[in-house]
Amino acid sequence: MSGASQEGMTAKKAENFDEWYTQVILKSEMADYSPVSGCMVFRPAGYAIWENIQKATDSEFKKAGIRNSYFPIFIPERLLQKEAEHVQGFAPEVAWVTQAGGSQLDEKLAIRPTSETLMYEVVSRWVRSWRDLPLRLNQWNNVVRWEFRHPTPFLRSREFLWNEGHTLFATKAEADAERDEVMGIYRRVTEEFMALPGYFGRKSKSETFAGAEATYSIEHLLPDGKAIQGPDWHSDGQNFSKAFEIVFIDKDGNKQYAWQNTFALTTREIGVMLAIHGDDRGAVIPPRLAETQVVLVPIVNDENKKDVLTEARRLAGVLSSTFRVFLDDRDNLTPGRKFNEWELKGVPLRVEFGPRDMKEKQAVLVRRDTGGKRTVKLAALPEEVSKELEAVQANLFQKASEALAKNTHEASTMQELKKALSRGGIVRVPWCGRADCEARMKEETGGKVLNVPLDEKRAGKCVACGQDADSANFGRSY
Amino acid sequence: MSGASQEGMTAKKAENFDEWYTQVILKSEMADYSPVSGCMVFRPAGYAIWENIQKATDSEFKKAGIRNSYFPIFIPERLLQKEAEHVQGFAPEVAWVTQAGGSQLDEKLAIRPTSETLMYEVVSRWVRSWRDLPLRLNQWNNVVRWEFRHPTPFLRSREFLWNEGHTLFATKAEADAERDEVMGIYRRVTEEFMALPGYFGRKSKSETFAGAEATYSIEHLLPDGKAIQGPDWHSDGQNFSKAFEIVFIDKDGNKQYAWQNTFALTTREIGVMLAIHGDDRGAVIPPRLAETQVVLVPIVNDENKKDVLTEARRLAGVLSSTFRVFLDDRDNLTPGRKFNEWELKGVPLRVEFGPRDMKEKQAVLVRRDTGGKRTVKLAALPEEVSKELEAVQANLFQKASEALAKNTHEASTMQELKKALSRGGIVRVPWCGRADCEARMKEETGGKVLNVPLDEKRAGKCVACGQDADSANFGRSY
Repeated sequence: MSGASQEGMTAKKAENFDEWYTQVILKSEMADYSPVSGCMVFRPAGYAIWENIQKATDSEFKKAGIRNSYFPIFIPERLLQKEAEHVQGFAPEVAWVTQAGGSQLDEKLAIRPTSETLMYEVVSRWVRSWRDLPLRLNQWNNVVRWEFRHPTPFLRSREFLWNEGHTLFATKAEADAERDEVMGIYRRVTEEFMALPGYFGRKSKSETFAGAEATYSIEHLLPDGKAIQGPDWHSDGQNFSKAFEIVFIDKDGNKQYAWQNTFALTTREIGVMLAIHGDDRGAVIPPRLAETQVVLVPIVNDENKKDVLTEARRLAGVLSSTFRVFLDDRDNLTPGRKFNEWELKGVPLRVEFGPRDMKEKQAVLVRRDTGGKRTVKLAALPEEVSKELEAVQANLFQKASEALAKNTHEASTMQELKKALSRGGIVRVPWCGRADCEARMKEETGGKVLNVPLDEKRAGKCVACGQDADSANFGRSY
Repeated sequence: MSGASQEGMTAKKAENFDEWYTQVILKSEMADYSPVSGCMVFRPAGYAIWENIQKATDSEFKKAGIRNSYFPIFIPERLLQKEAEHVQGFAPEVAWVTQAGGSQLDEKLAIRPTSETLMYEVVSRWVRSWRDLPLRLNQWNNVVRWEFRHPTPFLRSREFLWNEGHTLFATKAEADAERDEVMGIYRRVTEEFMALPGYFGRKSKSETFAGAEATYSIEHLLPDGKAIQGPDWHSDGQNFSKAFEIVFIDKDGNKQYAWQNTFALTTREIGVMLAIHGDDRGAVIPPRLAETQVVLVPIVNDENKKDVLTEARRLAGVLSSTFRVFLDDRDNLTPGRKFNEWELKGVPLRVEFGPRDMKEKQAVLVRRDTGGKRTVKLAALPEEVSKELEAVQANLFQKASEALAKNTHEASTMQELKKALSRGGIVRVPWCGRADCEARMKEETGGKVLNVPLDEKRAGKCVACGQDADSANFGRSY
């Protein structure tokens, strides 16, 4: 903690979002740039958020019967080429190893941009009978996609971290049923842990994952009015099982190809979370994901120092049995400097404890999200801290949900769509589902179909062709 | 679980260790080969062991104040070259990315064989004052070392998983004090979780990590009589801080270079563990690390099936609140086939439950390590299961410790060293510490200095030169 040299925020979120975002992730010590173009460093406070996201997601995966595994990072070129659409989608972004151990390789190796091809080649050996299915695997790993668009820490990085789920089923019905189970897990993790609302729906054909039959996503809205894709789930049908000969003998003794799905949640979500919750004083981290949930700042002067510090240490000890607590007893900084630093870093709750509080057997709780202050009795400190943390968590989701609702507009004509889009945000618009209409909407407005909600059927007439149409989420996208 | 097609072990551990090891890791479904030469697949049962090792190690790291982070997998060539000895040590084993995003890179990128150079380039920006120290970072990640020796899953794989700790201190004394703290964590994780004994000591100069001042290791002994290095800790002195300009202003206002250490525990330990504990029936997994600690096998016939299964499910539910339990209610396999399969997979404890047990309100517990059977009352089932699991955990460490002691010999002359070494195992031998004596011992015997225990000073006369010598651990090494 480089307290002495810490500088506060200077950019304003409402005025210059890009500069504000850069400041907030660097100054809060969530991330740093690296000497490798387009690749970022996850600093401890940022990586801790990822660990907490992993914990929340992984425990739900395990309950669902999804098991973790690890496959090599390298994919031989011939394997990557085995599924035609898949390789077309990923080949332009691949980083290739061509030399190793002092010599040129006979066949170059892709750094995984995703692991379908390698995993399915191996997994085809594990599946023989319907009794071997379902086979539900996951990996928590690093992947590389060598994009050339402007890199932004968390939001767009050439190497990123994610979960990649890969599951195999004996029947289409079982495979399809996984969608709501997995998207339910992602919904809970994004809403209840990241405090991020979003719109769930099916991506258009042109935005479907390379090699998949259908892609479903959660779409978030950034404060600059652009949408950004969150976690997704893909129905692969039998595309990969046919390319990789993943066959099994069904209950009737017939050979069948397995039905497959994949799904992912990436470290991009950390960026979305920081962008949405932060303010002009710095980061605001949802309590359930924060490395430090509570910072305790003793307020001392020369005569009471020993007594106040002793009691503060005791309180920090008590709170530590339930919460992630940091006692800031540094003696070279004023309380005011400490308050600023922890607000910049986004710690959800501050406990102030000074000589008067000691006398009155009380402490002052200060919320990061609202700045709200409350004096509580020490005897009730753990319960009060717990209540405040829950209030912060709930409020962040509430505020983000209100912002999303406020910035979601309706349009029923191309003209209205253009107008609504010019204000930023997400626009609900009738779209018939045809690719040429989608292309025209994109061309005329600069936005795109984000996804199509499953529950808003026949909402109107397509703004491009006038035919019966479902309602689509439309917006400029990150 | 490919129950129907499962084949048992055929190789004998005592007769053909290499073949036995291959069978045990493949047939127990811990690992598989991959289409990438020298790289392995961690199957779920094997990866779960790694997750449990991580959990045990990471919670101790966090208590010690070591924070996790994530740095890019790529290291630009010029950075890797910044510390001369370091690059010499690793350059021959590096895999290089030369093409990315459809074009040739201006500067090739190493896949990290270890992250010193990249991390320290970045971290040099984070350290300004003594108040920024200590800075104790860790990563859990994947690294690649393109070796050409015979690859063996877990034991030698071109890509492996590990923790890499990188810590910076203001003084040499603080840096040095970390050795016992971190090696203490590794000792507890290896002994109390993996049930693996080992010898702790300092590596010789020729075996010291490239770029470090000193390396300390735990050395294990494999059943084939060869030693293998376990976790290690390196004192880097100021070698890297000078190369990467990691300087800080000390309390007196003077510029100082930071003192650095690194430390690592790798997935190789899983292989060591499987090699040491397994037997001719398959894997034997220490309970604290096993994905499945208890398998419950209901024994049913047509008339009692429903009642026995109902009660078995209830019991599995009760046990699941404390243990990692699998209820094997597959109806296409006989109990005998199930017993064999779970023994092959190394599940530490089996609970058998049949109609007679139901009537007598009892169950039969069968230990994987000894085959010992015990009938216990259902009312006491959780306590009895807990006791048996603890007994298995303790017995595995006890047995491994006895085997290590039995295969550790003494030698006080070169002749005795040769003779002792021909029987396999580790030999305690006086060595003066000089490189030329080490080289002669290696040449004459085919073994090497594994490490030098810290507490056996002046144990005799060097077997090579006859001068006063400390006792060294010596052996053929993997």
